[in-house]
Amino acid sequence: MFSWRRSVFTAASSLRYSSTMATPSHSFQVFREVPPLRQFRNDLRLSRRTVGFVPTMGALHEGHLSLVRQAAAENTDVVVSIYVNPTQFGVSEDLSSYPRTWDSDVAKLEELNKELTNQDGNAGRVTAILAPTSKVMYPTLPPSSEPDGDGSFVTISPLSQRLEGASRPVFFRGVATVCMKLFNIVMADRAYFGQKDVQQTVVIKRMVKDFHVGTEIRIVNTVREHDGLAMSSRNVYLGSRRRSVGLVLYEALKAAESAYHAGKVTRSDILGAATLVTDRVLSEQKALSPAERALYDVDYISLADPDTLDEVEVIDPAKGAILSGAVKMAPIEESKAGEDTGLGEGKVPVRLIDNLTLQPRA
Amino acid sequence: MFSWRRSVFTAASSLRYSSTMATPSHSFQVFREVPPLRQFRNDLRLSRRTVGFVPTMGALHEGHLSLVRQAAAENTDVVVSIYVNPTQFGVSEDLSSYPRTWDSDVAKLEELNKELTNQDGNAGRVTAILAPTSKVMYPTLPPSSEPDGDGSFVTISPLSQRLEGASRPVFFRGVATVCMKLFNIVMADRAYFGQKDVQQTVVIKRMVKDFHVGTEIRIVNTVREHDGLAMSSRNVYLGSRRRSVGLVLYEALKAAESAYHAGKVTRSDILGAATLVTDRVLSEQKALSPAERALYDVDYISLADPDTLDEVEVIDPAKGAILSGAVKMAPIEESKAGEDTGLGEGKVPVRLIDNLTLQPRA
Repeated sequence: MFSWRRSVFTAASSLRYSSTMATPSHSFQVFREVPPLRQFRNDLRLSRRTVGFVPTMGALHEGHLSLVRQAAAENTDVVVSIYVNPTQFGVSEDLSSYPRTWDSDVAKLEELNKELTNQDGNAGRVTAILAPTSKVMYPTLPPSSEPDGDGSFVTISPLSQRLEGASRPVFFRGVATVCMKLFNIVMADRAYFGQKDVQQTVVIKRMVKDFHVGTEIRIVNTVREHDGLAMSSRNVYLGSRRRSVGLVLYEALKAAESAYHAGKVTRSDILGAATLVTDRVLSEQKALSPAERALYDVDYISLADPDTLDEVEVIDPAKGAILSGAVKMAPIEESKAGEDTGLGEGKVPVRLIDNLTLQPRA
Repeated sequence: MFSWRRSVFTAASSLRYSSTMATPSHSFQVFREVPPLRQFRNDLRLSRRTVGFVPTMGALHEGHLSLVRQAAAENTDVVVSIYVNPTQFGVSEDLSSYPRTWDSDVAKLEELNKELTNQDGNAGRVTAILAPTSKVMYPTLPPSSEPDGDGSFVTISPLSQRLEGASRPVFFRGVATVCMKLFNIVMADRAYFGQKDVQQTVVIKRMVKDFHVGTEIRIVNTVREHDGLAMSSRNVYLGSRRRSVGLVLYEALKAAESAYHAGKVTRSDILGAATLVTDRVLSEQKALSPAERALYDVDYISLADPDTLDEVEVIDPAKGAILSGAVKMAPIEESKAGEDTGLGEGKVPVRLIDNLTLQPRA
């Protein structure tokens, strides 16, 4: 495959990982097919190494990197998958506009591996990337995004119909299905998910419990910008104006959290505090000119049971609750000269989600 | 846990399996919970033993034992699960009357282990039985048999709506779901299924392919009584009269197979040959008195594509086809003194299924 000269280079550039046959240009292997990754994984098991798995759709940002860091702190080997899964996008959703940034993703993981080496010699590293094609992930039938489409699916109900699932009927079917496939391929000891997608964490934990998946699910805190905006691959489409107005979701959730910390427990008291914020900011924006403002719709603000995601009327202090919400930022109506309108020139609607956990009271 | 004296007994009675901590009374361990079985399985992997898995609903007969024999021939360790899975029975189906025969099942596996020891010292043995409760298999929500019921399910469509699935809408959802759980628990190298349930073999192979399950699926030929009746746990309900008339299904399939071997390839030619048999036998029965006859309905006789189970009009000689059928034996109308009417006194309707593979022509 490689010339002798090249093999020497490989060995030199990945001293610690010679047994994993790193490709010359990377400190990790890149797998596009399942059987060689399975072999790689089996070898790791027999040498009693541990695998942390970080499933992603690419477009890596600090949120993903925080997952990889935690995976590296808890495992000898980190496998990152980069695959934009079509079955979790509805037919009218943003599959085609979802950012695809392979080179920058790989560069970020290389950088992170350097950081891990310099910072903590005992931490694990990213040793494999799985970047499969859809033919590999959906080998028999084309991946369907129709709610009644044919295919092999994992469904988790009624959890998947709550919150995000109410407006995205195939979303969690797609997420659960692709995660079951990925879990079976990677056979990780632990898999890492961000708290930002709270319903995803609840659905995946339920799937792992109900199907006895042998991978422990680890949830990592949401990474936020300095002002509190939750990191998201979709943020690149916001531009500065919508980015700043988009903070309204986090502010609304914080207001609701404060009400809980102040002793409130009823739905109306908690969510009322959030609605005050979203209503006020929207009024302020509407008073501005189209060249200054950013408008939005609040999809939902939810106060839900942490296990079932059923809406709650009164918080059980022994269980706490999940505060979550989704806000859809409309395209900007009129841009100003020199304005940073983001990728897509401000024309792409951007749906923001965020959540806070209301911890049980002692 | 055990006294010293008992431990010695354990070690003595299961010399070859001391590392698997066989209980005193069995040559295999019986697991009712997942974590100890997972530990058992991991230990096997680290000592490079191999695991063949035979999932059953108990009521073991020669058909099951042939699966275990093949598993023992191809693996060092055989895990047999015994679990009557509620989600594959429709609400009006025979879950409550499905035979439960734990003591005799265990005795048959003990006997088989002796046979394996005597016959071939190199063959594997049954070293573990998994006999979980429904709370273990369905830990969150009660197992639903409703087509739109809540729960965590694996669905494989449109395969699951074909043939058996047409009259049993939740059957293959239940089968795929419980098999995914069992596969995740047992992590077998190979799992063994009988050809008799041909649609099940197609659905499970599809599931394994689509979800990248790391277990190889092995199909074992149907075991038949001396006269050709396919072995089935439900046969105990037949009694001698219905047993003998029930052979009609196999005879009809053989007639259709003969037509194929004689060069016929069209649906009408092949299935016409089967229908001649089922019609003739039914006329003969109807001419008898209620104390002599056994009546039946033909649910379907199918000629289907081996991969998709879509009905075919003309057999592609390069692919061959699956001939399959289902016949529902009605309760006997009137029994005679001293007649063997089977378990349930001939009152339980019994649905028989069978199939033959029409091999591709060279």
